[in-house]
Order: sequence, then C-alpha cells, then structure tokens
Amino acid sequence: MKPLNLMLVAACAVTSVFSQQPMPAPTPILYSEKTISELSQVQKAALASDYAYRQTRYLTTNIGPRLSGSAQAQRAVEYVADEMRKAGLEVKLQKVMVPTWVRGIETGEVVEFPGMAAGTTQKIVLTALGGSIATPAEGLTAEIVVVNSFDELNALGRDKVAGKIVLFNNKFDRELQSSGFGGAAYSQAVQYRFGGAMAAAPLGAVGVLVRSAGGSQNRLAHTGAMGYADGVTKIPAAAVSFEDAEMLAHLAADGKTKVHFTITPKTMPDSVSYNVIGDLKGSEKPEEVVVLGGHLDSWDLGTGALDDATGVAVSMQVGYLIKQMKLKPKRTIRVVAFMNEENGGAGGRGYFEENKNDVGKHFAALESDLGASHPLGFQFAGKAEALPYFAPLSKILASQGAFQGQLQPGGVGADIGPLTQAGVPSFAPYFNQQTYFNYHHTAADTFDKVNPNELAELGSLMAVLAYGLANLEQPLPR
Amino acid sequence: MKPLNLMLVAACAVTSVFSQQPMPAPTPILYSEKTISELSQVQKAALASDYAYRQTRYLTTNIGPRLSGSAQAQRAVEYVADEMRKAGLEVKLQKVMVPTWVRGIETGEVVEFPGMAAGTTQKIVLTALGGSIATPAEGLTAEIVVVNSFDELNALGRDKVAGKIVLFNNKFDRELQSSGFGGAAYSQAVQYRFGGAMAAAPLGAVGVLVRSAGGSQNRLAHTGAMGYADGVTKIPAAAVSFEDAEMLAHLAADGKTKVHFTITPKTMPDSVSYNVIGDLKGSEKPEEVVVLGGHLDSWDLGTGALDDATGVAVSMQVGYLIKQMKLKPKRTIRVVAFMNEENGGAGGRGYFEENKNDVGKHFAALESDLGASHPLGFQFAGKAEALPYFAPLSKILASQGAFQGQLQPGGVGADIGPLTQAGVPSFAPYFNQQTYFNYHHTAADTFDKVNPNELAELGSLMAVLAYGLANLEQPLPR
Repeated sequence: MKPLNLMLVAACAVTSVFSQQPMPAPTPILYSEKTISELSQVQKAALASDYAYRQTRYLTTNIGPRLSGSAQAQRAVEYVADEMRKAGLEVKLQKVMVPTWVRGIETGEVVEFPGMAAGTTQKIVLTALGGSIATPAEGLTAEIVVVNSFDELNALGRDKVAGKIVLFNNKFDRELQSSGFGGAAYSQAVQYRFGGAMAAAPLGAVGVLVRSAGGSQNRLAHTGAMGYADGVTKIPAAAVSFEDAEMLAHLAADGKTKVHFTITPKTMPDSVSYNVIGDLKGSEKPEEVVVLGGHLDSWDLGTGALDDATGVAVSMQVGYLIKQMKLKPKRTIRVVAFMNEENGGAGGRGYFEENKNDVGKHFAALESDLGASHPLGFQFAGKAEALPYFAPLSKILASQGAFQGQLQPGGVGADIGPLTQAGVPSFAPYFNQQTYFNYHHTAADTFDKVNPNELAELGSLMAVLAYGLANLEQPLPR
Repeated sequence: MKPLNLMLVAACAVTSVFSQQPMPAPTPILYSEKTISELSQVQKAALASDYAYRQTRYLTTNIGPRLSGSAQAQRAVEYVADEMRKAGLEVKLQKVMVPTWVRGIETGEVVEFPGMAAGTTQKIVLTALGGSIATPAEGLTAEIVVVNSFDELNALGRDKVAGKIVLFNNKFDRELQSSGFGGAAYSQAVQYRFGGAMAAAPLGAVGVLVRSAGGSQNRLAHTGAMGYADGVTKIPAAAVSFEDAEMLAHLAADGKTKVHFTITPKTMPDSVSYNVIGDLKGSEKPEEVVVLGGHLDSWDLGTGALDDATGVAVSMQVGYLIKQMKLKPKRTIRVVAFMNEENGGAGGRGYFEENKNDVGKHFAALESDLGASHPLGFQFAGKAEALPYFAPLSKILASQGAFQGQLQPGGVGADIGPLTQAGVPSFAPYFNQQTYFNYHHTAADTFDKVNPNELAELGSLMAVLAYGLANLEQPLPR
C-alpha cells in the first residue's frame, strides 16, 4: 500500500450511514430472491473454503517476496495466471513496464558520540527505502542532526544541516493504532519516509535516516517508497528501527554524534511485467464488469503475506468459488492481480489506460490491501445515494460481524484509484487496524501472520460484495 | 541466563508456603523496629529513584552489547567500577578469564525445493549460536531433514541424516508463556539449542539449524549458547526465526529441500575480564556478606537491556541508595556485576573459587536475571524452615504487589549457583514471564523494553530483601 492510498483511508473516521438513510419508498427490486439465496450460499462456501489460505501460502512460502521486476514477481505472475485458468477463468496478461530497484548491502553503526570508548561501536538496524540511491561503496560518514518534523528541519536551516545526515525522528503513533486507526497513524508518519530526502537535500544534507513509519517494536526497520523531486539533489535514504531512532536521538542530545552507513541498492532499467486478469463472463450483461483484486507485487524484506498476497488470494477465490458453484453472475466478474502497487503503481495506471474508454462499463471496483484481519464491513467511495443499494449485502454480512458500511470520501485502494477517480463506485474491506502496521513493509510480513479464520471472513466479504454487485438489478447512482 | 539456570526456574510451579507455615511460637525477634522502619524508607526511596533506569540506559545505549571479551564488556567493567566508587562502595575488580567468541557474517537461503522456479530464492533469517564453529567461508549447502525432537532424530538414523543439515523444529510453547511460565517454555525448548549439534553430528549431519528457543514472532532469531561434546565432531549451528522454521518445514514436507548458509564466527583465545565487586561494609558483622547482583555481559545482537543490564543496575542502586541514605547495615552488602554468565559462567565460578573458604560467611545471595517486569515476589532456594524469616519482608513488599514468596527447589541464578549449591540461602525476584522470552537473546532486547515503573519496583524488591537480610537479628537455617 502506498502513501496516497493511506492518506485517503486515514481520513475515514466516518459514520455508518445505513442507519441514517432508510431505503426510499417505493423500493425498486435490488436483488432477486434467487440472488439473495445464492449470496447466502456464496458466503457459506467462502467461510468454509481454504482456497485463499492455500494460495496465500504458496505465494509467500513457495514463491516468496515479489518486488516488481524480480524473478519471484515473474514467477507469481505465471503461477496466478495458471491457477486462474485452472479455476476456469478467461485469463489475460496485461503488459506493464515496472521500475526495477534491487536492494543491496545495508549496514549502519554509530562511530562517535560523547563518552564513546575507543574500540566500541553500536550497530544501527536500518534498511534502504525503496527507490533510494546508494551511498558510496565505502559508506557515508557524517554527524547526525535530529528533527521531529519538517518545520524543525527548516528552522535549523542550511547552516546546521549542510554536510550532515538528517534523522527524521517523528514517532509512529502507537496509541492511535491501538485505538484501531493504524492507517491514520501511518498516514501521519509516512510523509517523512516519502518526503524526507527531498526536504533535507536542499539544505545540504548528505543523507537521511527516517524513523520507521510503522509500529514494530522488535528492532525491525519498515521499508517503503521514498521520492526524489526534479531539480533536487538525490541523497541516500534509509529507515531505521524505532529502537535505533531512540538510541540515536538520545546520544545526539548529549553532543556530536556521527553515523556511518552503507546501502548499495541499484536502480535498473524498467522491466516488463504484467497485471494478471481473469474474467468470469457475465450471463446477461457480459460487457459490464465488476473488478476485484489486490496487488501481486510486494516489498522484498518479508514475503508480502498481509501486503498483499491475501488480497490477491481472496480475489482469486471469488472467481474460483463462483465458477465451482456453477453460479451465473449477470455481469462479468473480473479478478485482477495488479503489479507494482508498492513502488510505482504501474499496474493500476496501466489497467486504467487500457480501459479508459470503458469506464462506464465498469460497474464497480473492489480492492483488498489493508491486511486480512476480521473485517468489520466495507468502505465505499462513491455517491452517498448509492449506499442503500448495499444494505441487503450488509444484512447478509452481519452474520459474520461485518455489518458496517462506511462512506469513504476519497479512494479505497491505490490500484483501483484511477477508476474511482473516474467515477467507478469503489469498495474496500474495512478493518480494525490494530496490528497491521506492526508488520507492514517489514521482514516479519510472512505467512504465519495470516489467521485462516479471519482470511475466510475476508474472502466471504469480497465474494458477497462482488457477486451481489454483479447481480444488482438496478444501475448504481454514479 | 543460561540453560541450567532456567531448567531450575522452570521447575518452580511452587505454592506459597507462607500461609501454610505460620511463625513458630515463641517467636525470636527477626528484625528490630528500627530495621522495619528503615526498610519502609528504603522501599520508598527505591520506588522513587531513577538511578537504576539511568544506569540501564547508559549500559545499553551508551555502551551497547557486552559480549564477554569485547571492548564493550571491558568498557562496562570500567564504567560500573567508577559508578560504584562514586556511590561510595569499596570496589574491587576480580580477574576472570573468559571465552571470547566473535560473531561474523551470517546469511542463509533456500536454494532448492519442489516447484522452485529458476532464478528465485528465499532468504532465511538466522544467527550463529554462541560457541559455534564457522561454516566454510563459501557457506554450507545441503539438504535439510526436519525433526521435532531428539527421538525423531534418532529414529531417522544415520542413513537419513548423514550429509544433511538437521532442522530442529521444536516449537517454543507460546501458550505456556502466555500463562506466565515463559521460563518453563524456554527450558523445554533450549535443549535443542544447546544439544542439537552434539546430537546430530554422530549421525553424520554437516550442520544444524535450530528453531529459536524463544517467543519472537517478528522474524528475529534468538541466539544463545550451544555446546559440543568431547570426541564428537563439531558442526556449525545457527538459530532460525520461528517464521523461517515454519517455511523450511513446509517446503521440506513436499520433498527435497536444500539450504545454503554461511556463518563465520571466530573463537579467539580466552581474554582477561572481571567481576566488578562493590562492598558496603557492615557495621556490626562486616565479615558476614549479603551478595546481590546481576550479570554485566550480554549477548551481542541486542544491547542486553532485560538480560541483564537491569539486574546489574538494580543491584548497583541498592548500594547507592543505602549509602546515600546513610543507613548502616549490620552485615556487609556486596554488589557484584558478574562477567560471562551468557557463554561460560566464568564470573560465577570465579567468585565462588575465590570465596569457597568463606561460604559460611556468605549470609545470603540474590540475583536478578529474569528481566525487569513487575515483580510478584521472590523465589527462595534453601531450607523451607527459613521461609518464615522473610515474612516481615514480604509484608512490606505486599504494598507494591510483590507479596509472593516461593520455595524454589534448586537454584535461582546462574552466577550465584555455586553459592546456592554450597548451601548459601539464595533469592531471585519472581516475575510473571509473559513477554521476557519474546526479546531474550534477540536484537530487540534494547533499552526501550524497560518500563521505568516496573524497574523501580524491582529495585525496591532487591533493596528490601538485601537490607532486610543484612539486618536480620537471627542466623538463617541452612
């Protein structure tokens, strides 16, 4: 998941509007009795299925990290395409060119601070931010200057920043996360990860270290995308663990503190990659499409289980189950495993480019990219007038505790973002984000973090939404 | 903390005996009214002091990891000696020769498994176990064989083990830990870490990987001491994270799975190091000694905060506070920062060797080496008849929720273990061990894991016990 997406998600302390907006009377038929009956069957089948869990396991454990342009990402494309074919979908690979950034060595240590004894050192746990340039091969050594915000940085000015490594020490708000708003905490923190280098370079900084934009308290650095600006010197940027940020800030408060760090990532030429698209053709309105998906690429430190093998797997499962149950959706259900959400968004943009003349035929879009814990309901980005159309789906999902439908001013997923902005009614599962950002973009985002029961609930929510939308008897307000 | 210690601690699902053994009548005076009054003052001062917290910070953040024989360990010796002198203690450095093992490179990856795509790989997070020999510089490549116990290993026999890397996949019992018995969970798991290499080598194994003996679920490998046996081939041994053990076991269940790993630790000649000993001489019976301490060395991955900077710091604080308060203990209070608990025990043995003719003058011994969470009370290793002598101390400590006094069949601390075995009444703080083993021996054992309020409670418990014992009006049954 990338910053833009989360800033939008973060804005979503929204109230449920279902209770406030009763169905208008006289009521048109939204879902036929047959559809309602089938939706209950779909829900039951999804809650009982381990298809998504097995697919998540394969993507993470048998394939591994899937950074755009990597051999693993290509293997994942082939695997998902094969599995979709086995499930009976019409599969197409849509070519996209993706940035190809390869992590190298990464080491760091404190080399000077007041009172430091000769011959001693302190290791710094750090990881290169995605897109960063390398340090010199022998590393970069400089005094650090610690700031908690862009305002503090700018107040220091060039005199105090030039020639130094800036440590952005903004704290990830774990209290906010504990209250269920991990996305809001992330959104607040991620600006330093993404924008730190471009803010510090104009003041003459030679590198930046950024306190991790995430909740880990287990000496893990959270990677993620960073940016450079045109005309601004590129300087190396790495994330440090919460613990190391605390240590550095404490030492620097006592006086001159120098750090040595080495990162050797390489930016290669863009590579050919693919969105994997599997269609289950509609029986009555095949030209109208309900798109659902997640992103197939992941960061490279962990195996991208929660971010976002689960999103891909539950989407694949929707196609698999509906086909297996021999149900006939009126509209086409299109499963998309998007490529390059993490460090470029080429897949989401590419999908939109190819379909921009058919936006009107995109009936709805769903993306799951905020983990796989117990879903509380879904977020909806679109016209408020459309919300009552989903009440019957919420009624079904209420039996699994996913009854909340929330209006989301903005987008609900990075890959479907261009569709949302073009007016396609868009959906995302809604979670209580208390732990997701403890693992997000770290080495610990691995298969074991996925709870099979909660994943089944997520799969059920995606299936009920997708099948319901594909069989809605009315056009949606848009 | 080392295995022996914990096996003893683990055996301690013991009941409180205070309620079962009322004080015998007629009752001799145990503590004078003056002592009882002073103990309340000591408790109050300790609960209000941040001395131990600051010392913990310095040892971890300003000095860092303190593996025996390292420059940091030497720096810690000098620092603690200086601080004890500043506190007004009579300081002595007791020379001990310590094993000197230096960690090197450590990398691992899966290089073959059924269905693995060309050009892909899976990283394995691992760390060399303390004392392990190195792999060849280019690493070791072999098929893995997965076992859950020594019995499973032996049942496989030489045919299926020779030439392979054995993965000991015994699971750390997180449920047991969650119930408060982390030590018992550790004790059950640690046998594979310590004994894995010597069990696998006779069957022809070329290396061992051991699922971490600890509760981390954050892609951290737990290091710790391993052993070799005389006459048994030495093979390299590394711990893998819980996540990587799960991955490897899953892949190997499908068929032939090969791993490549490299560890390059070096075992250097033994080094000179020191126990740091600070005496606060007794006013009436200076020849009788109450020893209290923790261990100054630590593993090298984290900064040894919970294991065991806190134990040293709270012990130093006892001397500091009693001196500062101008209290006059009847017996000598001796603060010891033991060296080399983690990978040899040279400090504990050396202290005993030097004092073995004075065991009778060692009135009591206390060690804090199980973290620094809220203490529930203390464990006691000694004669059951002695327990009523501590009831007045428990009564004082009850006000801070540390009212449980438990009889501990066996020892209560590795460094004071030789004293305990020689009959010296011995004590350790008693904790609810729900989280300690999630950080133990990992990179995440850092200063931030120490809660200042809980550390103050631990400091108070150590101070009340030590000052009480130093002023007990009666000899202890032993």
